[in-house]
Amino acid sequence: MKYELYYWPSIQGRGEFVRLALEQAGGGYVDVARKPRGMPAMLELLDNTKIACPPFAPPFLKVGKLVIGQTANILLYLGTHHGLAPRDEAGRLWVHQLQLTVADFVVEVHDTHHPLGPGKYYEEQKAAAKRRTADFLRNRVPKFLGYFERVLSQNPKRGGYLCGGKLSYADLSAFQLVAGLRYAFPKTMQRTGGKYPKLIALHDRVAALPRIASYLTSDRRIPFNTDGIFRYYPELER
Amino acid sequence: MKYELYYWPSIQGRGEFVRLALEQAGGGYVDVARKPRGMPAMLELLDNTKIACPPFAPPFLKVGKLVIGQTANILLYLGTHHGLAPRDEAGRLWVHQLQLTVADFVVEVHDTHHPLGPGKYYEEQKAAAKRRTADFLRNRVPKFLGYFERVLSQNPKRGGYLCGGKLSYADLSAFQLVAGLRYAFPKTMQRTGGKYPKLIALHDRVAALPRIASYLTSDRRIPFNTDGIFRYYPELER
Repeated sequence: MKYELYYWPSIQGRGEFVRLALEQAGGGYVDVARKPRGMPAMLELLDNTKIACPPFAPPFLKVGKLVIGQTANILLYLGTHHGLAPRDEAGRLWVHQLQLTVADFVVEVHDTHHPLGPGKYYEEQKAAAKRRTADFLRNRVPKFLGYFERVLSQNPKRGGYLCGGKLSYADLSAFQLVAGLRYAFPKTMQRTGGKYPKLIALHDRVAALPRIASYLTSDRRIPFNTDGIFRYYPELER
Repeated sequence: MKYELYYWPSIQGRGEFVRLALEQAGGGYVDVARKPRGMPAMLELLDNTKIACPPFAPPFLKVGKLVIGQTANILLYLGTHHGLAPRDEAGRLWVHQLQLTVADFVVEVHDTHHPLGPGKYYEEQKAAAKRRTADFLRNRVPKFLGYFERVLSQNPKRGGYLCGGKLSYADLSAFQLVAGLRYAFPKTMQRTGGKYPKLIALHDRVAALPRIASYLTSDRRIPFNTDGIFRYYPELER
């Protein structure tokens, strides 16, 4: 099966959750917008007034004629087709629920530098960003990371994965959360990371998966930067 | 099948998207936290350190032993079991994709009155809320509503539903978006609603479904208020 991923070519962003799953699935894919003439192809698909199922925004995944939009929805598909989620309904819904909680957290990460909306540059909303980030680091990071730590603790399989005894796409996403937070808020993560030993261990376990380890050192992994969702603005962390 | 919905008892909030689907499914359900001793039962489940799949936040749905959290995930389940989504994979993913775009929009609606985060009262962040709302009404409402209008226009079945020729949970959610925006931003919707004739027609079609019509006039439908996601603060609309 040939996959075409459509996502902004210069950032990890939401697309990174999909890239990680595609890398772990191991079947190969084309990161379309990073190829010559890829960006116009992506924009053409976004603006296409003929297709029955137009995506709202990148990322979206093309599989033959099927165009699947929304990060968590793409992962729902990939999880089913590549053993990255349980086969039974309860397990499938649980992994998806975890992914949707990751997605909620990702919005809040983005809001730290864009609290007044996507219509203005960060530089135009720096004061508000400082206030939002203070609340985020004090209250939201412990709430979300504490939740994932608790899920790992309460998993009766105790194998270090979020769902049952096997790797799922939610584990890959949890890795990305920790990696992103370490980049954007290094002091906070250094000071408080110890409160989430199981989550940090999961991050390390995912980073050591052969396919992921190889991906992370390849040029397919775009470095974190201040155009993505996780941004390092030292003035926000204080 | 007996469903137990767990959600805050005094607001529509995210739970309303689930309530609408449960009402249309027609099999009956218990809105647990609105019953005596329901709130402690909900909080007990949220704090339970024994269960393998703890929900992050309300709403969650209990179906026998299964506890399903995250609004869109609950709808994924209800859609499959009550004919509120297509049976084929492509159709199922498309309806879910639409629902996740609804969810993205709902976060932005919430951010209009809480741009600096959920940790502070609206009254403490009114100035930022005004700036965020201005961007929201100018740029984001047209982007999202224009998208749903376009989906309705590009649906080859042209029956007035978002997916194919049949009602899905995404249609119920689109109804709720329009209803909520009309409550929170009445001037904007009165002035610009005409740009989205197919979406408004879908709102009206859903409102006229016998089960939904009966629900909307019952006391099971909690009125909109300024504790929910859609809030009417006239000063934000100008």
